[in-house]
Amino acid sequence: MATLGLVEYPDAPAEVRAVYDDIMATRHINWINNFWKALAHDPPTLRRTWESIKQIMAPGALDPLTKEMIYVAVSATNQCAYCIASHTAAARKAGMTDAMFAELMAVAGMANETNRLASGYQVEIDQPFKT
Amino acid sequence: MATLGLVEYPDAPAEVRAVYDDIMATRHINWINNFWKALAHDPPTLRRTWESIKQIMAPGALDPLTKEMIYVAVSATNQCAYCIASHTAAARKAGMTDAMFAELMAVAGMANETNRLASGYQVEIDQPFKT
Amino acid sequence: MATLGLVEYPDAPAEVRAVYDDIMATRHINWINNFWKALAHDPPTLRRTWESIKQIMAPGALDPLTKEMIYVAVSATNQCAYCIASHTAAARKAGMTDAMFAELMAVAGMANETNRLASGYQVEIDQPFKT
Amino acid sequence: MATLGLVEYPDAPAEVRAVYDDIMATRHINWINNFWKALAHDPPTLRRTWESIKQIMAPGALDPLTKEMIYVAVSATNQCAYCIASHTAAARKAGMTDAMFAELMAVAGMANETNRLASGYQVEIDQPFKT
Amino acid sequence: MATLGLVEYPDAPAEVRAVYDDIMATRHINWINNFWKALAHDPPTLRRTWESIKQIMAPGALDPLTKEMIYVAVSATNQCAYCIASHTAAARKAGMTDAMFAELMAVAGMANETNRLASGYQVEIDQPFKT
Amino acid sequence: MATLGLVEYPDAPAEVRAVYDDIMATRHINWINNFWKALAHDPPTLRRTWESIKQIMAPGALDPLTKEMIYVAVSATNQCAYCIASHTAAARKAGMTDAMFAELMAVAGMANETNRLASGYQVEIDQPFKT
Repeated sequence: MATLGLVEYPDAPAEVRAVYDDIMATRHINWINNFWKALAHDPPTLRRTWESIKQIMAPGALDPLTKEMIYVAVSATNQCAYCIASHTAAARKAGMTDAMFAELMAVAGMANETNRLASGYQVEIDQPFKT
Repeated sequence: MATLGLVEYPDAPAEVRAVYDDIMATRHINWINNFWKALAHDPPTLRRTWESIKQIMAPGALDPLTKEMIYVAVSATNQCAYCIASHTAAARKAGMTDAMFAELMAVAGMANETNRLASGYQVEIDQPFKT
Repeated sequence: MATLGLVEYPDAPAEVRAVYDDIMATRHINWINNFWKALAHDPPTLRRTWESIKQIMAPGALDPLTKEMIYVAVSATNQCAYCIASHTAAARKAGMTDAMFAELMAVAGMANETNRLASGYQVEIDQPFKT
Repeated sequence: MATLGLVEYPDAPAEVRAVYDDIMATRHINWINNFWKALAHDPPTLRRTWESIKQIMAPGALDPLTKEMIYVAVSATNQCAYCIASHTAAARKAGMTDAMFAELMAVAGMANETNRLASGYQVEIDQPFKT
Repeated sequence: MATLGLVEYPDAPAEVRAVYDDIMATRHINWINNFWKALAHDPPTLRRTWESIKQIMAPGALDPLTKEMIYVAVSATNQCAYCIASHTAAARKAGMTDAMFAELMAVAGMANETNRLASGYQVEIDQPFKT
Repeated sequence: MATLGLVEYPDAPAEVRAVYDDIMATRHINWINNFWKALAHDPPTLRRTWESIKQIMAPGALDPLTKEMIYVAVSATNQCAYCIASHTAAARKAGMTDAMFAELMAVAGMANETNRLASGYQVEIDQPFKT
């Protein structure tokens, strides 16, 4: 079989359930999305990925909404349909309005364009940007 | 010759100088970075790109600092050395602290990781993320 | 029409059938997957691609399982859904266990993360890595 | 040692020299660029890559200049500095003017932008584009 | 809701209708594809993107067919399913034959391969490609 | 300043030194490469990244050499010069021969090519690869 399927809560071993419980408690939700149910086939990766996400996406010098929007911009750049769908939903939940989404997309699109103009024109880094 | 070199201000035709002047006035700076001097070989692309950037990066539903950080995240994802250097400098000028940069990098790095876990595990989009 | 459709065996010209026959004989299978049926619209590309794949994926300094896992890692990095599905199936057929798949994904995910941390932090290559 | 260095003509084994000779004869040049000198550490890959390039880049339904420009567009998209430099030089040799290069870059840049707008907005493929 | 849906002509505000009308007039068609209907949620991006596309894709130093083929090559490199479908259709409408498509794919595929060989072998740019 | 520079051991705070010490002890080396010295500006990311790498790259269902080769394949795909240099060195230290490197590159290059052929030809996933 090519895909591993999803590990549902009732079928999950204790170490997986512990992560599922923490995800639901941290996010104040009562369901687990497919990403975690797929990773659950590998409990160490499930735990490490969740612990990393939980630490990285917590409020800090940047607020959660800004972090989710950065996540969407990267996911759109990489053409990851699952991640675009899930993190756009997360960003909206964190307060992203239609106007903010539109500007986020405009910036991400433009960055992808100028990234190629800079490389295609073989532009050298200016001295002031190095020091 | 493979590269076109840079169009310096004294050698630039009037239509290029007009863009250079607008860049310096808009950004309150007195120099032009290499990206624009390379694009200046193609005045229509120079003007269109600058007008787009000016419109997109202006304050709106998102503030300029957030926009510059999104630009850095995309540029790091695409491995564009020039764009990473120039937009990191721009983000710092707009107020990005070391702590904010660190969190920005952590989010961008994590997004790149989970983008591949989601695709590699062939995770299907959850119904709640579709509607 | 945007897509070319698939060239099925009974409809295939002799030069395409010859490649199909070699694919089935080499892989000990009795069907052709869609990738080849699509390329068959361009017999020179079909032949060249198959001959290259046959040469590259054969046992050598690396065993076929390692090669298929590298293929999956690259395909997940590029978000190619077709290639992820087909080469994950091939890797499993070559002996990849669930535990091996999990570690492969963990490495590929981590590499994608640190690739961006290295570029975003503008890290210079250490002298010992150059010589 | 991390890098393998370059295989220069006088030091090359006969099978490598045969490829070098064919490259110089086919391209009407009297030197070998570093890409081939690096691949020469692996003669089967050297030969296979050269034979594929020779077949693919030959005049056909598309002329060599168009093919070189497509090569540049892909290389700029992938941020491959070596490939951008070498194929821009090849395209110029094949007749690419500054004006053609400028339009090529404009199209490649725009495609990279709209690729992300299409994915970020989660746009579904229109029925007329499917059939 | 994660996705914004599509803005159909009868529901579109005047500024959006004006862009739709210009798209249909410029392309001599009587329908609007989903990409524009999605962008229409953000009229400034809709207008700017359309004006850029109209300018960039117009006949110039490169003909429209060559431009559409470059667009397809970039979109395939980025794995953007929507863009591959829509621009392959546009290229066919502009005159791309099956033989041209096959060669376009062969070049784009090969460029993606050698881009990685060049970077993986850490090939340095030859002096003649720099000057 | 655009770049943060490197945190050298004598200047490092205790929590950073602890990670440096663990890196050197785990890898049986007496120096720290630049990647970690750059991340050290953000101790939580330094620690999390190192702990993840240590866990992921340890011997398991896959041996360390296979893991390093997967790392190189992904890094070459992403055009990350730093990561290609550092992980090629690590793979060689783990036992990668020239012949293994050559096959690794051949597979990674081919995967990048067929990824684009599969997407460009809009190939649908075969039923046997889904179940």
